[in-house]
Amino acid sequence: RVGWISDIIVVVSPENIETMKSIIEKYGHKRVMIVKGGITRHRSIFNGLKVFVENEFSNHLLQKPEVVIIHDAVRPFVEEDILSKVVMAAKEHGAAGAIRPLVSTVIASAADGCLDHSLERARYRASEMPQAFLFDIIYEAYQQCTDYDLDYGTECLHLALKYCKTNAKLVEGTADLWKVTYKRDLYAAESIIKDNLSQQVCVITNVRDAVAQVGFLLHESLKSQIKVEAISVYLSKTDSHLQNILSGQCYNFICVNDKKCAIQETQQLVDKLEKSNIPLLYPVVLILVHLDISENISFSIGMEELTRIKKFAREVKKKNILVYGLLIQYKVHISF
Amino acid sequence: RVGWISDIIVVVSPENIETMKSIIEKYGHKRVMIVKGGITRHRSIFNGLKVFVENEFSNHLLQKPEVVIIHDAVRPFVEEDILSKVVMAAKEHGAAGAIRPLVSTVIASAADGCLDHSLERARYRASEMPQAFLFDIIYEAYQQCTDYDLDYGTECLHLALKYCKTNAKLVEGTADLWKVTYKRDLYAAESIIKDNLSQQVCVITNVRDAVAQVGFLLHESLKSQIKVEAISVYLSKTDSHLQNILSGQCYNFICVNDKKCAIQETQQLVDKLEKSNIPLLYPVVLILVHLDISENISFSIGMEELTRIKKFAREVKKKNILVYGLLIQYKVHISF
Repeated sequence: RVGWISDIIVVVSPENIETMKSIIEKYGHKRVMIVKGGITRHRSIFNGLKVFVENEFSNHLLQKPEVVIIHDAVRPFVEEDILSKVVMAAKEHGAAGAIRPLVSTVIASAADGCLDHSLERARYRASEMPQAFLFDIIYEAYQQCTDYDLDYGTECLHLALKYCKTNAKLVEGTADLWKVTYKRDLYAAESIIKDNLSQQVCVITNVRDAVAQVGFLLHESLKSQIKVEAISVYLSKTDSHLQNILSGQCYNFICVNDKKCAIQETQQLVDKLEKSNIPLLYPVVLILVHLDISENISFSIGMEELTRIKKFAREVKKKNILVYGLLIQYKVHISF
Repeated sequence: RVGWISDIIVVVSPENIETMKSIIEKYGHKRVMIVKGGITRHRSIFNGLKVFVENEFSNHLLQKPEVVIIHDAVRPFVEEDILSKVVMAAKEHGAAGAIRPLVSTVIASAADGCLDHSLERARYRASEMPQAFLFDIIYEAYQQCTDYDLDYGTECLHLALKYCKTNAKLVEGTADLWKVTYKRDLYAAESIIKDNLSQQVCVITNVRDAVAQVGFLLHESLKSQIKVEAISVYLSKTDSHLQNILSGQCYNFICVNDKKCAIQETQQLVDKLEKSNIPLLYPVVLILVHLDISENISFSIGMEELTRIKKFAREVKKKNILVYGLLIQYKVHISF
């Protein structure tokens, strides 16, 4: 997803390596290498770093990067913006990490389970991920650090400070960087994903003239609520435009047409969606709106065609694309 | 909800006092008094405490309690168990508060926005709510504390320690005590509520003999997944049993009957539900299962009756009770 990252090392516990391999294969992830995790956080991260300098961890040594980003998989909503900010700060300061304000006051407890002292909340921050480091600094820190650090420590910024005298630059992160820890966090994550998926819709029309205004009205009424991209297939630039929308991870499409049968065009869109790998992650919703402008009162779309659309929808559902049909009777008034 | 709490003081910002009054009235909350909040957390809490000792805050002085619990409205999932624990600990130690393990490492930043030092995560805890205090201790602490404390402090346990030399007992709280802070927390809270509501179902049957086994099978298959309470209306103890279930905040009911018309009995249940105030908070779901054991193949439940049930459901929906009907044709085989 982020073009300027050259290699991604995924550190996985031994029992989950096969699952991870199948995930990478299924979703066609590129530039990803799997490394076996250790028994603690720091040992796992150290294993990940060794890939760039020690031969034992992989068949071919990856090129040692200038800057390395360390991230937790339990923080799924990391944006390119914060990645870029911590990398730039790490280039300048040697180390950098995302922070957030504290939600609760932090206290120290005494041995008897009573309050020893409380910290002034405004002076402290929660250290979050992602963090970035000049590779040589963080690798040096891991080489220098003690077994106690490796077994009980949790903070990479601390290692860089303690062993390389590098005071990390702290970068304000977004609220979405929180750590998915409890069951309630899974609920929250699910809702955020659903929310994001419904933020954008692409309206594709092949209708002209008289009925084009329906597409226009739809566009106008939708755009007050969500981000709408509109495409008319009569414009020559359509294809690259559509490609842009697909790479922007749009999951909702409304196709307005007035032809008797638009399955062929829909099939082309489905092919493009499939090639983009977008439906692999979440279902894509495709609403086919058929504008019926015939003077005839009876439905001009026959049973035969309905059956064809149903069959098509059933086929396409296997590819995680949900097709819905909508038939609108549209009377054109022509004045003489 | 918790019988041993004698008075509840709700501290509300001036602009929300009218809304809060209407909420208390609507849901019939008892033992609740509203007090105007201050401009900071500590000033608001202090206002709440003054109700027990200063006349200016209310028409009638409430009786000064031995122990006072301080809680945040943004932590809606507080159980009686933790309330009782902090109160018992406060009686013994003078002060007590719920704590949780830290999810992220806490760091101190220097003036230049760089890391100053990081705290060893295992030695610190997040201070959560509820907290409890001997009234005299926390009131004394608020009287003694400085304007700086009132304006910038956030931690009541800190005030008790600083001004009354009381080291609060720290009590491990549940994960559900977290503070609803971000939009994602609202999603999580909503899902937790829905989850809780679906955890219990009450099956009420008025069927005997031949068809009673259907109720039994239903019970058996449901109870592997959720908590099921079963009631037969033929048992004399039914009424107090049902009352217990209602006070346990059950939101799901399945009524199995084999009589031609059970609307009268359903009406009685609806009346009891309404009186219990349960449907005020969330919708109650009531599924009417009609077992048809007549030999006749045609539906023995006529159109007239269906219309009656529909009309009934529409009426009851206004009371936030959702009625669904299910008709099961049930063949009794009798061997000679």
